[in-house]
Amino acid sequence: MSDLRHDPIQRRWVIIAAERGQRPSEFKLAPEEKKGGFCPFCYGNEHTTPPEIFALRQEGARDTSGWGVRVVPNKFPALRIEGGLNRTGVGLYDRMNGIGAHEVVIESPSHTDCFPDFAADHIDRILSVYQARLNDLNGDQRFRYLLVFKNHGSIAGASLTHPHTQIIATPITPRTVAVELQSMKDHYMFKERCLVCDIIAQELDAGVRVVSATEDFVVIAPYASRFPFELFIAPRRHAHDFLTCEGGMRQGLAATLKDTFTRLRASLNDPPYNFVFHIAPSIGNQPHRPGYWQTLAYDFHWHIEIIPRLTKMAGFEWGTGFYINPTSPEEAAKYLREVEI
Amino acid sequence: MSDLRHDPIQRRWVIIAAERGQRPSEFKLAPEEKKGGFCPFCYGNEHTTPPEIFALRQEGARDTSGWGVRVVPNKFPALRIEGGLNRTGVGLYDRMNGIGAHEVVIESPSHTDCFPDFAADHIDRILSVYQARLNDLNGDQRFRYLLVFKNHGSIAGASLTHPHTQIIATPITPRTVAVELQSMKDHYMFKERCLVCDIIAQELDAGVRVVSATEDFVVIAPYASRFPFELFIAPRRHAHDFLTCEGGMRQGLAATLKDTFTRLRASLNDPPYNFVFHIAPSIGNQPHRPGYWQTLAYDFHWHIEIIPRLTKMAGFEWGTGFYINPTSPEEAAKYLREVEI
Repeated sequence: MSDLRHDPIQRRWVIIAAERGQRPSEFKLAPEEKKGGFCPFCYGNEHTTPPEIFALRQEGARDTSGWGVRVVPNKFPALRIEGGLNRTGVGLYDRMNGIGAHEVVIESPSHTDCFPDFAADHIDRILSVYQARLNDLNGDQRFRYLLVFKNHGSIAGASLTHPHTQIIATPITPRTVAVELQSMKDHYMFKERCLVCDIIAQELDAGVRVVSATEDFVVIAPYASRFPFELFIAPRRHAHDFLTCEGGMRQGLAATLKDTFTRLRASLNDPPYNFVFHIAPSIGNQPHRPGYWQTLAYDFHWHIEIIPRLTKMAGFEWGTGFYINPTSPEEAAKYLREVEI
Repeated sequence: MSDLRHDPIQRRWVIIAAERGQRPSEFKLAPEEKKGGFCPFCYGNEHTTPPEIFALRQEGARDTSGWGVRVVPNKFPALRIEGGLNRTGVGLYDRMNGIGAHEVVIESPSHTDCFPDFAADHIDRILSVYQARLNDLNGDQRFRYLLVFKNHGSIAGASLTHPHTQIIATPITPRTVAVELQSMKDHYMFKERCLVCDIIAQELDAGVRVVSATEDFVVIAPYASRFPFELFIAPRRHAHDFLTCEGGMRQGLAATLKDTFTRLRASLNDPPYNFVFHIAPSIGNQPHRPGYWQTLAYDFHWHIEIIPRLTKMAGFEWGTGFYINPTSPEEAAKYLREVEI
């Protein structure tokens, strides 16, 4: 089982997943992409993944073909579902067992189609699958946070090319989310308004960093973007919980995602990217003792962060928290607004 | 001039250096390493860099050959030295001018020699040059923090192969440093001991994460390492200020660095890496109004962080602050201790 360890200097939790990992000597080999090889996510290979957790299917039995979106456990999970947390001290350090969930949402049977290729209706179905899994995982009291994220392209960390999203349930609230929860709470205490609602109002007024805006959603290049073409997608009306995004609103999000990823692909030649859903921390269906961060959940404004992986200049940022972005968000937004799609 | 912008959600400053950067269309081209081409850092090409700021030289006039270590301004600086900060609000955002310094320390005349190749005496000279520049930059009251870091290899962000270190002076304290300052202050308030001194004592006692220890320095793989073979080098006796590391102690650090980088190269086939000096924030020679972080400087324990760039799995970490490390620090430390050098 992996170990969750707390860094007392940087105040963050790290998963030490040694059983998942390479031996030191393996780092000497440059990793090679397997091309044209076997794909466990394609039709006919369902028996090669761990047993299916969930699927939207037209036909066929569990773990056979005929599905439209399929969810399976990660074969090499960073966190495992069985067991107790066993939170303990190790001298001045803190640790707990690597308990959690690590699932893979296979977005479609197509080995190559991706968000710009999918019909908006299919993206809506994918979003409904995220929500079904979040709803289910919310019921587990051990989990404090549910991470929905995607790595597209090997530079962005994807080890399989077949389009998929990952969901990780963790027993801690990640630091990035914790900072956002605190910022939004503090702004609310100071202004009695939501920070993200205020940002959206200012951005729509200024216009220069807006990529697109529909009735329900806005896509902006953030004022202090860390990376070229970094994007921020948020509902225009305050909502702390992505699970309330249903019906026509979720269809609107699907259309916005299709439009946004189509613009990115057209502008930047199918760039590698990561996206991360920033949602309020899991409160659980029967919380017997909410954590501090859970108590801030209602002041949160959920959003999606997209980070294209265009620059190599991101080395020392890990040591400093300091980012140098060579492309202004105004320029990125203009480019994405005006690209022909 | 570049813009320093504050992200109110993530509470961090970002440099928007659009003048330095690529146009959006340039990201479409995969960047190519130039091999065997012209090197502005080699002997004979001194006139192609901006005029020299500092040099240790045996012979020759300024901006000619004959130097052993040479410091020049970065030709494409992220921050510029001339001007005032002009800190202002932009609606609910904050910004200031991109004022600072961005220097390059050319570590030796050799185009290929690096830390494992240098004599310890030469590394000591390089360290003395870092200190000379830090001393000089400390005199500028506009600067709140001085960053010393190195990108080795193109994957780690080095755009020129000739070995060099960078120094950036910033008018803000980077968030990573701020978190460390606060952790160390809080630990001191709670325990009346230094957090890093406590960590070093525990690590030397446990032994399993220690790579090497001399009279003055310890090299450990941190308990909650984010990355495989991440290393932490710190003085064994409390010191907040790297500038006090002089004479025999600095020679000891030089020997430790040579040993550590030799072990990394032997273990991991010359991996790309970043190192970052974590030093107390600049107090300035004549501080008229120290910032909050400056007031915590004395409880800080300076150290060096080394991050080998071995995994591609670091995409979504930028969106979450959440790290999955496939190699335990115990395994990394053992491997580095036992490698034949």
